[in-house]
Amino acid sequence: MYRTATLLLILLGLSTTLVAQSTDLWGFTPENAQRQLALEAKFDQAINVTNFDAWIKELAGKPHHVGSPHGRANAETMVRLLREWGWDAQIETFYVLFPTPKVRLVELVGPKPYKAKLAEGVIPGDPYTAQPGQLPTYNAFSADGDVTADLVFVNYGVPGDYEQLERMGIDVKGKIVIAKYGGSWRGIKPKVAAEHGAIGCIIYSDPEDDGYFEGDVYPEGAFKTASGAQRGSVLDMPLYPGDPLTPNVGATQDAKRLERKDAPTLMKIPVLPISYEDAQPLLAALRGPVAPAAWRGGLPITYHIGPGPAKVHLKLEFDWSLQPAHNVIAKMRGSEFPDEWVIRGNHHDAWVHGASDPVSGMVAVLEEARIIGELVKQGQRPKRTLVYCAWDAEEPGLLGSTEWVEFHADELRQKAVAYINSDGNGRGYLYAGGSHTLEKFFNQVARDVKDPQHGISVLERRRSASMVQGQDMSSLELGALGSGSDYTPFIQHLGIASMNIGYGGESDGGEYHTNYDTYPHYTRFKDPGLAYGVALAETGGRTALRLANADLLPFDFQRFSRTVNQYAEDLMKMTDSQRQKFERQNKLLAEGAYKYTTDPRQPLLAPKPKAAVPYLNFAPLQNALAELKQAADNYQAAASKANLTQAAQTNQLLIQAERALTREAGLPRRPWFQHHIYAPGFYTGYGVKTLPGIREAIEEEKYTEAQEQVQILADVLAGFTQLVNMAAAKLK
Amino acid sequence: MYRTATLLLILLGLSTTLVAQSTDLWGFTPENAQRQLALEAKFDQAINVTNFDAWIKELAGKPHHVGSPHGRANAETMVRLLREWGWDAQIETFYVLFPTPKVRLVELVGPKPYKAKLAEGVIPGDPYTAQPGQLPTYNAFSADGDVTADLVFVNYGVPGDYEQLERMGIDVKGKIVIAKYGGSWRGIKPKVAAEHGAIGCIIYSDPEDDGYFEGDVYPEGAFKTASGAQRGSVLDMPLYPGDPLTPNVGATQDAKRLERKDAPTLMKIPVLPISYEDAQPLLAALRGPVAPAAWRGGLPITYHIGPGPAKVHLKLEFDWSLQPAHNVIAKMRGSEFPDEWVIRGNHHDAWVHGASDPVSGMVAVLEEARIIGELVKQGQRPKRTLVYCAWDAEEPGLLGSTEWVEFHADELRQKAVAYINSDGNGRGYLYAGGSHTLEKFFNQVARDVKDPQHGISVLERRRSASMVQGQDMSSLELGALGSGSDYTPFIQHLGIASMNIGYGGESDGGEYHTNYDTYPHYTRFKDPGLAYGVALAETGGRTALRLANADLLPFDFQRFSRTVNQYAEDLMKMTDSQRQKFERQNKLLAEGAYKYTTDPRQPLLAPKPKAAVPYLNFAPLQNALAELKQAADNYQAAASKANLTQAAQTNQLLIQAERALTREAGLPRRPWFQHHIYAPGFYTGYGVKTLPGIREAIEEEKYTEAQEQVQILADVLAGFTQLVNMAAAKLK
Repeated sequence: MYRTATLLLILLGLSTTLVAQSTDLWGFTPENAQRQLALEAKFDQAINVTNFDAWIKELAGKPHHVGSPHGRANAETMVRLLREWGWDAQIETFYVLFPTPKVRLVELVGPKPYKAKLAEGVIPGDPYTAQPGQLPTYNAFSADGDVTADLVFVNYGVPGDYEQLERMGIDVKGKIVIAKYGGSWRGIKPKVAAEHGAIGCIIYSDPEDDGYFEGDVYPEGAFKTASGAQRGSVLDMPLYPGDPLTPNVGATQDAKRLERKDAPTLMKIPVLPISYEDAQPLLAALRGPVAPAAWRGGLPITYHIGPGPAKVHLKLEFDWSLQPAHNVIAKMRGSEFPDEWVIRGNHHDAWVHGASDPVSGMVAVLEEARIIGELVKQGQRPKRTLVYCAWDAEEPGLLGSTEWVEFHADELRQKAVAYINSDGNGRGYLYAGGSHTLEKFFNQVARDVKDPQHGISVLERRRSASMVQGQDMSSLELGALGSGSDYTPFIQHLGIASMNIGYGGESDGGEYHTNYDTYPHYTRFKDPGLAYGVALAETGGRTALRLANADLLPFDFQRFSRTVNQYAEDLMKMTDSQRQKFERQNKLLAEGAYKYTTDPRQPLLAPKPKAAVPYLNFAPLQNALAELKQAADNYQAAASKANLTQAAQTNQLLIQAERALTREAGLPRRPWFQHHIYAPGFYTGYGVKTLPGIREAIEEEKYTEAQEQVQILADVLAGFTQLVNMAAAKLK
Repeated sequence: MYRTATLLLILLGLSTTLVAQSTDLWGFTPENAQRQLALEAKFDQAINVTNFDAWIKELAGKPHHVGSPHGRANAETMVRLLREWGWDAQIETFYVLFPTPKVRLVELVGPKPYKAKLAEGVIPGDPYTAQPGQLPTYNAFSADGDVTADLVFVNYGVPGDYEQLERMGIDVKGKIVIAKYGGSWRGIKPKVAAEHGAIGCIIYSDPEDDGYFEGDVYPEGAFKTASGAQRGSVLDMPLYPGDPLTPNVGATQDAKRLERKDAPTLMKIPVLPISYEDAQPLLAALRGPVAPAAWRGGLPITYHIGPGPAKVHLKLEFDWSLQPAHNVIAKMRGSEFPDEWVIRGNHHDAWVHGASDPVSGMVAVLEEARIIGELVKQGQRPKRTLVYCAWDAEEPGLLGSTEWVEFHADELRQKAVAYINSDGNGRGYLYAGGSHTLEKFFNQVARDVKDPQHGISVLERRRSASMVQGQDMSSLELGALGSGSDYTPFIQHLGIASMNIGYGGESDGGEYHTNYDTYPHYTRFKDPGLAYGVALAETGGRTALRLANADLLPFDFQRFSRTVNQYAEDLMKMTDSQRQKFERQNKLLAEGAYKYTTDPRQPLLAPKPKAAVPYLNFAPLQNALAELKQAADNYQAAASKANLTQAAQTNQLLIQAERALTREAGLPRRPWFQHHIYAPGFYTGYGVKTLPGIREAIEEEKYTEAQEQVQILADVLAGFTQLVNMAAAKLK
C-alpha cells in the first residue's frame, strides 16, 4: 500500500560516526558478535535470486485482492513453503468488511456530454493486463451514492486548498469536487470535501505526477498510461485502521460488530478514482477562475476551478459483504527466550497483481524465512522466537495486521521485542523509518549490507546521495513512522518498537495500484535482475537475526532523546512562527494590503482574521526531556560496562520501553492511536505528526488542548525515563 | 521590445522613509516646490484618456516595423502632432541593416515527416490579425543557412544547460538544437548553441510559459494560441547594440560601414522561432534521455533530449538590405538652462501591430508632450530643455536610439541630464529601474502619483504588494538596468543617468512579438479603460518636469553608495560561495559520490574538476567605497544647507556625475559598454550584471582578470567620488 515516492519522504539526514569496525555489534559480546557475523555471512551466501523471480511470478501471477481465489491460494502456498522450511506456520483468518463495486458511473452531463470509460486498457506485450478477475478501479469504503452537481476543481483537496478556495469566493457545498492524487493520503480528499459540504468526490492521477510528464508511459516506459487509475482505500484510517466494524477487537467470525451505519471510519460521500484520459474532458469543461499556478497539472488545457458549467453525474453502488482475510503466521521458536518475539512482516494481498506492491517485498521476507529455516536445520536456532507474517487485506486499510494485533494484543504487549515491516521494494537507496530507540542499531545493519550496484555499503551509498544533494550526513537518521503500512497497529496502537524498510529511488513509475503493476513491468523497470530484492532480504534478515540473537537488546536511548528533543524544539519554533504569521496577517488586513493587491482578473478576498497565538508553557516538556537525556546517558554508561551475558532481566524492561510511550486514553478524538511520539496526521493520513497531541492542537488552533497535551507528554516521557533508569540500574 | 514579465524581474524592495510630506520636493526651494506641485496638478487634470485610445488605434492600426509604410506614416503623424503642440520636432533618419525573410523552412524529415506551418492563424473577432503587411515569424539577424541534422532539446539553451548536457554525455556539435523561450534573452540561445558547435537553432514558446498553462488563449483569454510565435532580434547585443555595420558611429547615409561578413554581432548560425503547435511533433519525435524535471514544459508529451532520431531540415534566407529608421526628435527649449537636456523616449516601431509593445507606452509619451506644449503656451515653459523622442528600429536591436546616441554623442555627453525610457505599459504596479543616483528623487514621484484602481499612491500600492509577498518595503528600490530597451545607449555607452518606467503585473499574456498584440487584445486584457496609460503619463511627465525645473538637480549619492556597497558585498559573498561550491564538488568527485549516485536509468557523468578559487584582494574597492560613502554624506549635508537658487555650477558637475562611472576602454572584450556599475550580462542578454567587470570575470573563472577589474572599478569610483566632493564644495 505504501508508495515508494511517499516512502522516500521519510528519508533521513546526518549525524555521528558512520565508519565503525564491522566486528562491533551493539548488544553483543565480542565473541557473540563474531558468531553472529559468521551467521550473517552464511545467510547472505544462501540467498538465491531465482527464488525471488519464481515467487513473484507465482504470487503475482493472477489478481489476488482480499477474498479472491488467488489470494487464498497464495496464503496456502506460503504456509506450505514455510512448513517445508521448518516453521510452525498457519493461516489465521479474520472476517472483514470489504466492499466491491456493483455500479460505477461518471458522466459529464453538460455542457458537452462525456461518459467516463473507467476501464484500464490492455497493454500489448503484457498478457497479465488482460487477465480476468481484476477488481475494477474504485476507492474502497466510498459511500454508495447517486449525485449530480456542478464540478469544482480543488487541487489536492487538502485543508489549505479550501482556504484558497474560500479566498476565491468558491464554496463546494452541494457540489462534486475533483481532486488530483498527491499532496496527502487519498482518504483525506473526500473526508475534507465532505467536511466542506461536497456531495461527491472524484480523484484522478494528473500526468504531471506519474504520467507522461514524468517519463515514457507503459509499455514504452514505467509511467501511467492514459487509462490507468489508482485504486485505493478511503477508510478514515487516521481515526482507526482495520475492519471498520470491529475497532479494538479482532474480527473473528463471532466478534461483536458495529452496524455499518454506525461505523465512523466509512467515507460519508461517494468517491471514485479516474484516469487522466477520463479527467481531461471534465476539467476542460470547467470555467470560473484559472487555477493558481501550483494547482495546475500536465494536461494540455487551462485548468479552471469552476464551479461548473461542467455538471457531473456520479453513481456508485457497492457489495458490502464480509470477506475472509487470510494472514499467514509462521513461528520459529527461540532457543533461549521463546517468549521474546521478533516479528517480521509484509502484506500479501494486492489491488490487482501487485508484482511491486506488495509481492516484491513479500518474496524477500519469504527468502529470509527459507534461509533461517535452513540455518536452524544446521543447528543455528535463534535465541528469541521469530514470527514471520504475510498479511492479508492490507490494501483496504491494514485490515489483516490490525485484526491480528487487536486479537493478540495482550500476548504481543508482553512478548513483542520489535516489528520489522516491508511493503514492496525497488532499485536504489535504502530507506528506513522507525522507532528511534533502534536507530543506532540499524546504522550497524546498514553498514554491513552491500549495495548491489556499487559494492559499497548501503549506508555509504545513502551518504553519497545526501552529499550530492548538499547535505553532510554522517549517519542514517530514521524517519518517524506515520501510517500507510502494517507497522501501524504495532507501533501506534500497542507501542511495539517498529521499523519500516526497503529500497527505492531508482524505481519510480505510474503502476501503483493499477492493473499495470505486473511481473513484466516490475522486472523491466522497478528492479531489473532483482538485485535489490536480495539487498532487502540481507537487510531484513540481518535486522531480525540480530534482534533475535543479541545478548542485550540493542535499544539505545541517546538517539531517541536527541530526536525527541529536536521535535520539541521544532514545535516551539512552529508555535512562534504561527504567532508571527498570524500577527502579520492581521496587520496586513488592518492596513488594507490584501484589498490593494487583489488582481481584478482573479479577485482574491482577504483571509479571515486569526485569533492571537498565546505563549504556551513548554517547561514541563523541557524538564522531562532533560531528565530523559540524563537517563539515556546513564543507560549508555551502564551498558558499556555491563556483563552482557547477564542481561535477561534488563531485556524484559527494554521490551516494555516503547510501550511506555503509549497511553490507553490515546490521542484526542482518536483513542485507538496510543503512541504519543508518532502518529499519522489527522489531515495528512500517511504523513507523520511527531508529538502529535501537541502539534495537531497547535495546527488546529486549539491552544488550551495544546497546553494540556504538553503536560500529558511530559508525564508519558517521565514514565519512559523511569523505565530507562530501571534498565540502567539492572545492568549495574 | 522589453517584456513586462521580464521587467517585473527588475523589481524592488525595502528601505527608509516612505511617508513624507508631499510639499517636500528634493532639489526645489519650498516656494518652487509649491509652484511645481501646482504645475503637476494642472498637468494631471489635462490628461485626456480618449487621446490614448485614438492614438493606439492610429499608431497600431497597421503593421509598422522598420522600413514599413505605416512606420513612416506614424513618424510623420507624430511630427505633425508635436509641431501642432508647439515642439520643435523632426524626423532624424538613419540607414540600418534590417534583414527580412525570403525563405523559411522547418521540417522533420524523420522518423515521421512533418512540415512546420510557420504561420500565425487569424483570430475570429480580431480583424487586425488578418491584415496584410505583417512580417512573418522570424529572428532578425539570424544567419542564412540550409542545414539538416539530428535535433537536440537544450532546455533554455543557456550555459548551465550545456553543463547538464555534458554530464548526460550529449554533444550538440553538428546538431540542430531546439530551445524554449525564457531563461535568458533569446539571442543568448543561438549564440551559446553556436559556441558549442550546433549548426542551427529553433526557439519555441512552451505553453507552460505563456500559453494554455498560464490561462485561456486568445481570443478567449490573453495567452498564446497554438500557432503564435515570438519574433525578435538575435543580434549579439551584449557585444554592442545598434546597427551591426556601424559600431560607435551614427548610421547616416554616408557612414563608413563594416562589410556584413565582418560584423561581429550577426548570428553565426540559422535560427528561427516556431509555435508550440509546430514544436510538438519535433519534440515528440525525440528519444534519448528524459529531460530533467525542470526542463519539461506543458506539452502533453514526455520531453526527451535526443539527439534524434528526430532529424530536422532548417532552411533560411534573408533579404539583407538597409532600411530607413525614422526617429522622431522633439525639443522644447528650456527657459533658463537650454543646454541642459532632460530626455524622454519610447520606441514607435513594432514587430507587427504592437498595440502593447510599444504603442501603449508611446501614447503616454505623446500625451505628456501634448500637455507640456499646452502648459508652455500658458507661459509655464520648463527651465531646462525637454527632448521627447519616438525611436524607430528598437525591435531589431535598439537601432534607432543607438544610432542617434552615437551620432550625437559629444553633445549628449555635455548636455544630457537624464534619460527616461518607457516601452509599453499595462495594468498593475509601478516598476522602475535606473541609476541609483535618482532613487531618492523617484520615490517622491511615486509618492505623488495615484493608483487608478485604489486611489492610494502607486508607491503605497507597491508597498502593499511587497508586504503581501512577505517583504517589508519601506521605500522603492530601483532595479539595476541591464538591457532590452532604448535606455541602453544612454546609460551603458555614454553614462547618462537613466530610468526605465512602466506599469504591469496584472496584464500578462502571450501576445509579445506576435500578430496578436492588437488593439482588441490590449484593451480587453492589458489595460482595460487605459487607466494605467494615464498613470504612466502622470509618472513620466512628473519625472521629466521635476528634472527640468529643479533648482538643484535631484541627484543623491547616499542611496547610490549604499546600493553599490551592497553589490560589492554580494560579489564577495559570491566569490566565497563559488570557492566553497567548487571545493565541495571536487571533494565529492574524489570520494566517488557522483559515481555512486548515478541512476542507471538516466546515467549522469561526474562534473569536471574545478580549479580552486583564489582569495581576491577586494580592499581597493572597499576603500574606494568607504571614501564614496563619506563624500555622499558630505554632499547631503551640504545640499541640505545650501542656497538652492545658486546651484547652476553644481548642476553642471551633477550632470557629469554618471559620466564618471564610465571608462572609454569599456568592459573586457566589449568596449562599447563603458559603464562600470551596470551592464547587460554577456550570457544573460537583458539581465543585468552589476559591477560587471569583476562579476563576469569571477563567474567565468577568470580570476586574474577579476583582480585587475577590482582595481579598475576602484579607480572609477575614486573619480566619481572626486566629482561628488567637488559638487559638495561648490554648494558651500
